Amino acid sequence: MKRVVVTGATGLIGRIVIDAWRSGGQYDVVGLARSASNHTDVLCDTSDLEGLVAAFQGADAVVHLAGSSAVSSSWEAVLESNLIGLRNVFEAARLAGVKRVVFSSSNHAVGTFETANRPEIFEINDPRQIDHTAEPMPDSLYGVSKVYGEAMARYYVDHHGLEAVCLRIGGCMGEEASTSPQNLWDPQRDNEPGIREARMRVRAVWLSNRDCIHLIERSIEADVQWALVYGISDNPRKLWDIEHAREVLGYNPQDAAPREIFPGVE
Amino acid sequence: MKRVVVTGATGLIGRIVIDAWRSGGQYDVVGLARSASNHTDVLCDTSDLEGLVAAFQGADAVVHLAGSSAVSSSWEAVLESNLIGLRNVFEAARLAGVKRVVFSSSNHAVGTFETANRPEIFEINDPRQIDHTAEPMPDSLYGVSKVYGEAMARYYVDHHGLEAVCLRIGGCMGEEASTSPQNLWDPQRDNEPGIREARMRVRAVWLSNRDCIHLIERSIEADVQWALVYGISDNPRKLWDIEHAREVLGYNPQDAAPREIFPGVE
Repeated sequence: MKRVVVTGATGLIGRIVIDAWRSGGQYDVVGLARSASNHTDVLCDTSDLEGLVAAFQGADAVVHLAGSSAVSSSWEAVLESNLIGLRNVFEAARLAGVKRVVFSSSNHAVGTFETANRPEIFEINDPRQIDHTAEPMPDSLYGVSKVYGEAMARYYVDHHGLEAVCLRIGGCMGEEASTSPQNLWDPQRDNEPGIREARMRVRAVWLSNRDCIHLIERSIEADVQWALVYGISDNPRKLWDIEHAREVLGYNPQDAAPREIFPGVE
Repeated sequence: MKRVVVTGATGLIGRIVIDAWRSGGQYDVVGLARSASNHTDVLCDTSDLEGLVAAFQGADAVVHLAGSSAVSSSWEAVLESNLIGLRNVFEAARLAGVKRVVFSSSNHAVGTFETANRPEIFEINDPRQIDHTAEPMPDSLYGVSKVYGEAMARYYVDHHGLEAVCLRIGGCMGEEASTSPQNLWDPQRDNEPGIREARMRVRAVWLSNRDCIHLIERSIEADVQWALVYGISDNPRKLWDIEHAREVLGYNPQDAAPREIFPGVE
């Protein structure tokens, strides 16, 4: 059984995959985080290169989810976790002889394309779709750090023999929307400002818990040295491409956001 | 007359443009560097955000050349100058109200494409050419930092109203090759290991001093909010595209490396 270290074990996606693999037994999973929790097996901050090297010994893959995850993250937070911490994870993987790193990048690497074209771009029939070849257009320092992280991953692949899969993970929302994004909102709130656009957006970017776990498993298993992919469920409107993930990772989503999200209106 | 602050005033390209503008009078030029020199008007390190803000007051443009420039730069050097220092320069430009930043990025952002295809890619008739749309493929931590710098520039353009031009500057070599790259080598050395490939490479990437100065002047003057371009002279073999620089900056190189660089052989 493969040994997989998950950094950011206390985060939303960390908890989802650790719970799945603990109960399903797919991997010998080690949760790494800087704070103790039910999902933390190893206490370690990504600022601690030596600690990471020790934690990665014997691992077949690292799923690197740790980092400052708020789009509004400050420069100081981005610098510490997403620039320095990110590099430490790849360097530690190299030093520990880990073959593969799966890195949770973000759609915010190209986020300005979305913010500049909203809300029309969320419409069910809008033809525009962003894929892994889109030019970098970060909407935040957080987004800048994800462009950097992808470039660092590529460097370690091409020059240090690692394998890396960078995931621009869709709107994965945890338990509250694990089966359908409709559960997110009380229909009574449809007239509140922003709710309509938010619901339209989620329809276009939703990633179910099940598809998220599958996407990360494929990222660990696929026979690929380098990949950069978007990952969302098989939604009726897809803001982001999933054909590339199908092709290079064998990603095959089982879920889809509902087409009709406003009663009586398409 | 525009006031232009040049960071990295003691570096190769800093000295070239400062000398040109001091003698030609095109700009009220302020040389900024962390060490004193004939080209240093303001002593300041890019780690000093407040110092940069003070130095940038009243400037129309910043030409940001400071940074760790060796491809083999250590992580510590890259982190200090090319990650933290780079962000400080853009943030200081924003705080000081500077309209435009010209940033010396590097071909090493896509350097692996070259290293993976050398030496054939330097041949006079090789059809391959890299342009600004190439996917990031850094050959070094230095190259990673340049991908990051370009993404940071784009973020400040799109979200803080700055104008930015990112230059992947060609092989600019200072006085020793200011008129022709042939001067670089003693013909007697043609049989030494690597000399032949090095000369072929320079033919494909050479940027004369005159064209370098012109490229940076166009980057200050062109009516553009955002641009990412390669810049080399009008060489008979061009490893990097210059049509985009012609189009968006009005770049019009006057020099060209010679076609015949090996006596009697093309």
